[in-house]
Amino acid sequence: MELWLTETYGPIRGGWKAGGVLYSKQSKYQLVEIVETERWGKTLVLDGCMMTTEKDEFVYHEMLTHPAMVSHPAPKSICVVGGGDGGTVREVLRHPGVERVVLAEIDGDVIDVCRKYFPDHTSKLDDPRVDIQVGDGFEYLKNHQGEFDIILSDSTDPIGPGEVLFTQEYFALTKRALRDGGVLVTQSHSPWDPDSRLRNIRDVLLHNFSQAHWYGAVIPTYPYGWWSFFFASDKVHPLESARIERMQEITQNSKYFTPAVHDAAFAVPAFLARELGVA
Amino acid sequence: MELWLTETYGPIRGGWKAGGVLYSKQSKYQLVEIVETERWGKTLVLDGCMMTTEKDEFVYHEMLTHPAMVSHPAPKSICVVGGGDGGTVREVLRHPGVERVVLAEIDGDVIDVCRKYFPDHTSKLDDPRVDIQVGDGFEYLKNHQGEFDIILSDSTDPIGPGEVLFTQEYFALTKRALRDGGVLVTQSHSPWDPDSRLRNIRDVLLHNFSQAHWYGAVIPTYPYGWWSFFFASDKVHPLESARIERMQEITQNSKYFTPAVHDAAFAVPAFLARELGVA
Repeated sequence: MELWLTETYGPIRGGWKAGGVLYSKQSKYQLVEIVETERWGKTLVLDGCMMTTEKDEFVYHEMLTHPAMVSHPAPKSICVVGGGDGGTVREVLRHPGVERVVLAEIDGDVIDVCRKYFPDHTSKLDDPRVDIQVGDGFEYLKNHQGEFDIILSDSTDPIGPGEVLFTQEYFALTKRALRDGGVLVTQSHSPWDPDSRLRNIRDVLLHNFSQAHWYGAVIPTYPYGWWSFFFASDKVHPLESARIERMQEITQNSKYFTPAVHDAAFAVPAFLARELGVA
Repeated sequence: MELWLTETYGPIRGGWKAGGVLYSKQSKYQLVEIVETERWGKTLVLDGCMMTTEKDEFVYHEMLTHPAMVSHPAPKSICVVGGGDGGTVREVLRHPGVERVVLAEIDGDVIDVCRKYFPDHTSKLDDPRVDIQVGDGFEYLKNHQGEFDIILSDSTDPIGPGEVLFTQEYFALTKRALRDGGVLVTQSHSPWDPDSRLRNIRDVLLHNFSQAHWYGAVIPTYPYGWWSFFFASDKVHPLESARIERMQEITQNSKYFTPAVHDAAFAVPAFLARELGVA
């Protein structure tokens, strides 16, 4: 018998040879499953979408976290919205100046399941600087204005519980929750997705921030193998503000991020520059 | 009924929603098929492997061609080994200084089929500067020493007819077929492939050339969505030698390549730098 974990994204499909299903349970919000795959090890699948795996998670978590962390002059107070698998919190805490990380995850079951199946992802969740808030990130930010240097929007796709995290209302809220000169980073799907809303996401970000820089990374278990992010801020520029010493420090323990990779991520291919209106 | 074109690469699988099979015939060397896909349009499939499509081919062909073409001081005589779909020749001829392009393709049926189904790929094959040599590229290079400024190794994977194009013997041959200070570029699979021989390919290249620089590009229809190349030369350095005016000229009509993308492609992620021994 051959077992394959298969995910269909409109006109394309990804498949991963699987060893078996280790966990499967409907939470209050979504179907939470853990599948063992041959190439990527244990995999968290939410409502049928691969969210994180043991072996390729480093790309997503490093690239969601470090570009903002090495560019902000002194990031001390960080909020991760979503990110219940813990990987983003782990990367944030590689930066020694951090005093506080709030993890605002709506689905407590995801955190519990990941503590069991992803010990490396969740290795920093019990650090005393971490404040786990199980609940609606949207509501949390409403009640915590001007508190954060960096907000990392570690959301699922804009369907299901993550949908609200790509709206004007949400981005306006993140702006108010940031301190002066703060940075918002949000994941933003694959540029190869024909339904990608990258131009729209950029426009909405620019209603709230004076800069919104697209950047990319290769993530083999996400649709099309190429993923993207936006770096939004009024004062911090990812290429002009990044500190080389902090980049080199992070590179000592990174698997993907390097100073050259940081710069390279912000290079926009010609077709996408036209699509985004930045050519 | 739903039709899917599916390709399995060891522990992973890619699938593309298909409209139908337009052509299927065994050539002297391989099974040549054309399939219509929803996301990428017409697709050339050789022995079950997706080789090129109408809608994402620009990444591969631009990135195989332009990094060498903008870095060499005056590329006039070019040899494309493989590349029967014509896309690489089309990109080479975007550079006005080119006087001669040899296309050494082993399988004449591939050229004929692509002329019919890929008019854009093959649009420059009848240019008077193009010399189509149907036959073994290996043998061709043996008989044409010191003739080329750039050799573009536009091969299939190192199984099947493309196998010989990743050996010490082949790379030594390309070195002799190049003029002094020439550049060899070869495609080199996905760094995510657990059987990737990137370290080995680099070592073999360095037996023949004083420099061998890895670079990458995102190609959604190749395994894992992330593909790579090597740029080998004794005299030309892709970052130090590249001419900004030539890069800007090419960018006017490119879909992927830009001056920033050129530089960015050579940034090696941390895990890969360790694997290649360049960290």
